[in-house]
This record gives sequence, structure tokens and C-alpha cells, in this order.
Amino acid sequence: MQKIRHALTVTRDADFAQWYQEVIAEAEMAEESGVRGCMVIRPWGYGIWERIQALMDARIKAAGVENCYFPLFIPLSYFAKEAEHVEGFAKEMAVVTHHRLIGDGKGGLVPDPEAKLEEPLIVRPTSETVIGAAMARWIQSWRDLPMLTNQWANVVRWEMRTRMFLRTSEFLWQEGHTAHADKADAMAETLRALEMYRSFSEEALAMPVIAGEKPENERFPGAVATYSIEAMMQDGKALQAGTSHYLGTGFAEAAGIRYQDREGQQALCHTTSWGVSTRLIGGVIMTHGDDDGLRVPPAIAPQQVVILPMLREDDGDAALLAYCEELRRALAASQALGEPLRVLLDKKPGKATGKRWGWVKKGVPLILEIGGRDAAGGQVSVLRRDRLWREDGKPNFVGQAREGFVASAAAEIEDIQRALHAEATTRRDANIVRGIASFEALAEFFSENARYPGWVELGWSRPSGAELEAVVARLKVLKLTIRNTPMGGSEVAGNCIFTGKPAIERIYVARSY
Amino acid sequence: MQKIRHALTVTRDADFAQWYQEVIAEAEMAEESGVRGCMVIRPWGYGIWERIQALMDARIKAAGVENCYFPLFIPLSYFAKEAEHVEGFAKEMAVVTHHRLIGDGKGGLVPDPEAKLEEPLIVRPTSETVIGAAMARWIQSWRDLPMLTNQWANVVRWEMRTRMFLRTSEFLWQEGHTAHADKADAMAETLRALEMYRSFSEEALAMPVIAGEKPENERFPGAVATYSIEAMMQDGKALQAGTSHYLGTGFAEAAGIRYQDREGQQALCHTTSWGVSTRLIGGVIMTHGDDDGLRVPPAIAPQQVVILPMLREDDGDAALLAYCEELRRALAASQALGEPLRVLLDKKPGKATGKRWGWVKKGVPLILEIGGRDAAGGQVSVLRRDRLWREDGKPNFVGQAREGFVASAAAEIEDIQRALHAEATTRRDANIVRGIASFEALAEFFSENARYPGWVELGWSRPSGAELEAVVARLKVLKLTIRNTPMGGSEVAGNCIFTGKPAIERIYVARSY
Repeated sequence: MQKIRHALTVTRDADFAQWYQEVIAEAEMAEESGVRGCMVIRPWGYGIWERIQALMDARIKAAGVENCYFPLFIPLSYFAKEAEHVEGFAKEMAVVTHHRLIGDGKGGLVPDPEAKLEEPLIVRPTSETVIGAAMARWIQSWRDLPMLTNQWANVVRWEMRTRMFLRTSEFLWQEGHTAHADKADAMAETLRALEMYRSFSEEALAMPVIAGEKPENERFPGAVATYSIEAMMQDGKALQAGTSHYLGTGFAEAAGIRYQDREGQQALCHTTSWGVSTRLIGGVIMTHGDDDGLRVPPAIAPQQVVILPMLREDDGDAALLAYCEELRRALAASQALGEPLRVLLDKKPGKATGKRWGWVKKGVPLILEIGGRDAAGGQVSVLRRDRLWREDGKPNFVGQAREGFVASAAAEIEDIQRALHAEATTRRDANIVRGIASFEALAEFFSENARYPGWVELGWSRPSGAELEAVVARLKVLKLTIRNTPMGGSEVAGNCIFTGKPAIERIYVARSY
Repeated sequence: MQKIRHALTVTRDADFAQWYQEVIAEAEMAEESGVRGCMVIRPWGYGIWERIQALMDARIKAAGVENCYFPLFIPLSYFAKEAEHVEGFAKEMAVVTHHRLIGDGKGGLVPDPEAKLEEPLIVRPTSETVIGAAMARWIQSWRDLPMLTNQWANVVRWEMRTRMFLRTSEFLWQEGHTAHADKADAMAETLRALEMYRSFSEEALAMPVIAGEKPENERFPGAVATYSIEAMMQDGKALQAGTSHYLGTGFAEAAGIRYQDREGQQALCHTTSWGVSTRLIGGVIMTHGDDDGLRVPPAIAPQQVVILPMLREDDGDAALLAYCEELRRALAASQALGEPLRVLLDKKPGKATGKRWGWVKKGVPLILEIGGRDAAGGQVSVLRRDRLWREDGKPNFVGQAREGFVASAAAEIEDIQRALHAEATTRRDANIVRGIASFEALAEFFSENARYPGWVELGWSRPSGAELEAVVARLKVLKLTIRNTPMGGSEVAGNCIFTGKPAIERIYVARSY
């Protein structure tokens, strides 16, 4: 096989972190904003987020959940209760202290000392407290339950070390918050959201995930149980891609969310919360990207097919453009993955070859290059992003008759969606290691496979409290964490490698983002 | 005609401001959040915003504009340039000064003095500066132009006196920002956005508006020309419902947005910006609401038809629900206004009559009440929200055969959209007064019609500078403002009532929100 000249300067093998940054820059997904920890999400990155929103929102609405909007600012006092219970409480949050700027008399600006807020406001890191206060107003009787709300919003958590899409001070997310009459109903909702995230990741993002319960030490503070979906990135690390929490009655008690039951008695609600964020985009990059840039699963691709006319700035261009426009219209009339095909005719100035590599790096599933001869002969030249290179190291364009291509384009798009999912699943499954029988063997495995370690599946005794803390501390030395206990796992045999007690459930141990 | 017992306690006539608040509360659209100047937008209000977003976003995308996302925070220094030029600069904005909270040792929390930001951050009041900086990075040559970007986001302007949807410290909006090679192209975009807002208001919101140019004194600071759409509320006041600005090259110069033209020369871009916000919802309430609550134009109604089964908690309920579910499915299969009909079967516990008045106040276009006898006889009982009352003061339910209703429901929905627009247009046109020939007559008109003054259309000489300022000051005494000069207005005769010079264009003078 010929040496391939990849579109990126850094390969995944050479430097995964650097490769990740290069994909984001070259696919024009996002960039540093000049504001610490905040990114600018560019049209291609934001278009992917819009697709994620549209598909996820449809699932959220189908479950009967209603969207609302809550304030950006939360009074400082709302956090005081939390602080009472937390030793050495210190929260990295953006604090608003003034409501006016004035000139400093030296050509600069300063916060106006006369406009100091009586109570500082916090830019929401999450909306539990303010939504809890609203639910306490809205819920009176069992007739109001379940109350199912969701919000799409920006939130801020001051981060010292940021990485685009994965950990930024400001990020975009959805946060579901629900209140229920009893534990059974709240748990059902918690697991419904978890399953929604799992199926969404597999189907829309083509990203295989393990849905399961987080260990006690990784629970959302105050939650009774926390569940997650975990995806394996191409460097073998785990990415927590979504969480769902059963909060018991503790949050309802703090916020006063009570209802009158059918017997006329006052009772506390059981609440849940669940969320996914722009972090999903980071997961998509590290699941599907290759040494030529991003590969976007068709379901979330802002454009699924891009048509590049090879314009020559001569008399033939008009006929070529007419052919391409007719092709665009024919393709846009077909349906793939339950929606009309998204097709762009890229008429921007510039050489087709240069534009081609731009679209390759953006990861558009199908690229069509159409020259004057193609137009005259009723042909199209098709490049599938997931089969980019020929054996001889050249781009794998396949010439096809126009009619045949138009008839099969939707099926091809659906095949790419399947192929990306299959490729990622095969890789993930090949990199889950089983049969490690001691802590020493675990340590040895990760030290020997530092480059692409994957995950280790173990049976354990589900220790809690101090016993769990000891396990977590030993893993931390190896830079390892417990990801989750998979839902519906089969029975386990043998003993826990941490406690020596009989194993009762499976866990995944991995390095993680 | 019998006395009608309206669903609200306050009528528009009795107290328009109080009526407005009651509509919002009773339609469960929004409420005070407990955070100064910020509201909670409840599902019905947010559902209307989602509809506005979906329809507006389709128009924005169809114009080739791409959505992006820019940071919530803007460094203080970005505002310094503006301050240099503005005498006594003072801006009401939320200022972030710290990035951490810590316990104060007395059970409370305080901003950590150790975590003071070197440079304060401002919560964006608008994103001109930060988007300008991005455009300066993105634009190199004429090939990159026009650059058409838009953002859907929350923004904050500290407001001393707030009113829900109309003026809140935090609000939701879209802001379009575009860069062009020359003035002609930028002006075309400015007017395209204006026309988009005009047609959107008329078609989607059923809200008639006058599109025109704002007078010089009402321009966005730094803009060369500002255009607006102005709607007349039911108290006769004007609401500025959207703006579009041609910014010339001033903003490009400040941000360094330059391009290399076809001859290889560096040139400044011409930029535009344009926006509408959740204020549109306030406009919809004050255009279409009546003494029974909101009336939502079908195009932006989260639900267009609500089916209320009259459940009796007996054996007949199952058959009734089956009939209603079948009815819902049949209705949802038809198309109104280019989309599938949005139909809700409201199975929540509670009496149908009580639920009916809830939906009346929310303004859902069609309400169906279905009892056991209707189900048995293949009937439906239909209430049109815009024809709510019979002559005898009873709700105007019309019994119809199910088949006939299903066949005509989409047409009925489209008829309601038209009827609301026609009603609002008739009222608006009836309340524009012409022929006022002197300033004294103008003053007299508004003092004699304090309750429902409407607008006055005048010809004027388009004064500028100090001459305009004198006009503005005289109008201010009467609490009047110049709204805009309508686009494509016919020729005017006579003299300007302010300057005595020959009139050269029309203006509207009104009280306003």
C-alpha cells in the first residue's frame, strides 16, 4: 500500500491530545474566544449541536417532558444551605457583584462602587435550586404529578484547565428536572432518561456506550443514585457522556416540594435530574475522527452530502451549475434516517480540490465532485468519508451513473451511519479486558498498556464508605477510576480483587477524561 | 346580549397594565423568579418561544445565514473604546468580579477575595464586540464575503423597572451579525432582515407592523441607519418589535474586520446587525389577548387543538378515551399552515370544565369537549377561541359530526390565523390618525385621547442634529416619540408641523413601550 498523505499534520498515534485540537481547528468547529475558558462555537460545530438538540429534544418531548426557561443568575443565599453541610466549602463559580460600569476618569472603566449588589448573584452552574423553588410553587396535589421539566441553557463552572467541548467554563446543555409521587415513579424516570441517553448515543451519535450505575463516591452530591453512559475514546480512555440522578426526597425537602396525596396527606416529592452537554461533541470527535479530520455520523451531520462543481470560470460553468443544482434537488427529495437528505451545493469561490479537503476535514459523509465531463455524461464522482483512501494512496472516488447514485444515496447515508457505529463498537469491544484476577495484575496491565489501555471489566463486592474510599485511593495512584456498573449485567463469579470478598456485580475500571 | 362572565378578573379597559400581568399569570406563561428582573418562562410561554424560534430560524437559514455560539462573558476592556467616545459613560450591566465562593466562617458565603479576577467580565448585553473580533480572524479575502452569522442566546441588561417579556434584565433573543464587501451589499442585507421581520410578524405572529427607518436620535449607537418594525398594542401604544442596523465601516474599523479585494487591496468590511427577542411574546399578548386571556395565533401555538374528554371515572371512560385518541390521531394526520396539526389529548385528572377555562386563558385556537354521548354518536363539540361567546353569554360550542370536523379542522386553523391578523390590522388602521396640521393640534389630540390614543401619521422635513433634538424634546413633554418612517411611503404634501419646512417623508408619532 502506498503511503497516504493525510489531511492533518498530527496523527492520533503521534499525539492524541494535539490531534484532537487539530481536528477542531481544521474542521472549523470551535476556537478560543479570548475569554478565559470560553469557546466560540463555529457554524460546523454549532450545526452539529443543533442536530443533537433537535434529535434529543424530540425524544424529551415524546416522553412528555416540557421545556421551560429559568434565570441565568442564582442568588448567593441559595448556595448557603449546601455550604452548611460541606466542610471547607469552596465553589468555582462566576460571581456577579456589581450592576454598572463607569469611567475611572483615566480613560478606563471600573465597576461602579455605587452599584454594588446587596446580595451577589451566581451565574448558574446548574439550576437545581432555582427549579426546585419553582416546583415548590407549582406543585400542590397528586394531580400535578409527575411534573416533568427540561431546560436547554448555558451554564458556567469556573475551570482551571479547559479543553474545548470536554471541559469549558461556559458550556451548553440540557438539564431535566422531574418530581414524582413516590420512589418507584422517580426511579422509572431516572432510568428512562438513562435509556434515552444510551439509545440516543448509539443511534444518533453512532457512539457505543455502557449505561450503568456510578459507584457511591462518584454520585452527584446529595443524590441517592447516579447513573451514567460511558463511551470509550480512541485513546482507550473513558468519557462520561451523560448522567441521570435519582435524588430521593432530600432536594424536595430543601426546596419544600410537597404535594397533597389522594388521602389528603402532605408528602414530599421524589425528584430526579439528568443532563447531557456539548461534551457529546468531544465524544463524537474522539470516537469517529481519523487522521484526516472529523467523520460526522450522518444523523447529526449538518450537511450529509456536499456537491462540489469543478468550475473553470468559462462558458461551461452555467451548464455545470445547472446539472449540480438539478442533482441537489433530486437528492434532497429522498429520505434518509427518517428525514429529508441534507445536501449542500457549494458554489463558493475557490478550487474544488482545496474545498474538497475542507469538507473531508469537516467529515461530511459524502462528497461529490462534478466536472464538465461528468455533467455531459450524466455521471457523478463520489467520495465516501469513511472509505477515504484507495490502496494506491489516492482518494477513493467512485464514478457512478447519476440515476443510480440518486436512487441509492439515502441507503448509502444509512450505511455510513451503521458502519461508523459498527467500527466504534468493534474497537470498543476489542479493548475491554476481562479475567484480571488481582490488583497487582490490574496495575501491571495498565503500566504495560500505557498507550492504549482500554478498559478492564471486573467483578467486585460493591464496597461502600471507608472500604470504598480505600479502593478509590488505590486506583487513584494508577490514575484509574471506576466508571460504572452496567445495567442488566449477567451474574459474576469469583472474588473482588479489592476486598477479597465474593464479587456481586461487574464494574469497568479505566482512565478517563 | 347577556352579560358575559369573563375568565379574567381585570379587563383591558379597566386597567391595561394589570390585565397584561393577569394574562401572563393565568395563561401560565411566565412568573417572577425571585431573582431581580429575571423571569421564569413556563412551558406555555416557552413553547410559544420555541415556535417563534423554529419559524424564524428557518427564515434565517434560508437566507444563507449560519448559526454560531459566542461567549456569555465579554472582557471589560472591550467596552473601553466605547467609553472613550461617550461623555459620562455609565452602563447598566452585570459585572463578574470573582470566580469562587467561600464560607465566611459564620455559616454564610462570600466571594473569595483570593479569587478576584484581574479583569472583570461583563455578562453580554449584546455580542457586537466579541463577534467583531471573531470576524476579524475569519475574514481574509473577498472570497469569505458576505459572512452571515446569527446567534440565539440569552443577554443581560440591568433594568431598574422591569415588565415581563417587554423589559427584563435577562432576555432571550437572536442577534444576526453580517460583514460585506460594500455598502450596497450590506444595505441589502439590512433591508432583507427588516423584511424578514415584517413578513414574520404578519404571517407567523398575525401581528401587523410598520417597517421603516428610525429617526437619527433613535439609532443604535454607532449605526449609520437603524430600521424597525413597529406594532400597535391594544392600548394604542407602539411596540418596537425588531430592529435592523446598517453599521457602515465604523464597527469594522474598531474590530479590524478587513478583507483583500479582487485587486489585492485591503479594504474595510461594511457590517450589519439585527435582532428580535422574547419581547415579541409581549407583543403577541397585547395584540391578540382579550378579556378571557391570551389568544395564540395558530402558527405559533404549541398546541393548536386540545381535546378534553369529559371523564366520569366509570366504565364508560375507556370507550370515551379510545374515541378521543382516534380523533387525535385523525387530526394530527392533517396539515395546517404547512405543518402537521398540533393536537393534544388532555388526559390530566380534573373536571373538563375547569380544564376548559385553563385552555381558554392559554388561548389555544380550538378546544374540543367530548362526552360519552358525543363518542357514541360520532360527534364533537368545538369551541373556537376567537369566537368564544354566544349572544346569550354562554360559551359558543358548536356540535359537529366527527368526520366533517376532521376534514375541515386544518382549514379552520388557517382561518383563525387569518382572522386574528385581520382583526388586528383593522384595529391598527382604524387608530392611525392623519391630517393633524400643527403641533398644538397634535398636543390636543393626545391630551383628549389619553385612554386609547393610537398613532398619528405626519409629514415632516426630516430634521437632523440640533433641529431634531428640539423636536424630540417637545415630543418628550407629551410623552411621545417618533416611531419610524415607513418604507416605500407615498409622496407627502404640506409642511412639517415641527419645522415649518416642506415635508419630505412620513413619520409615525406615538406613545410607546
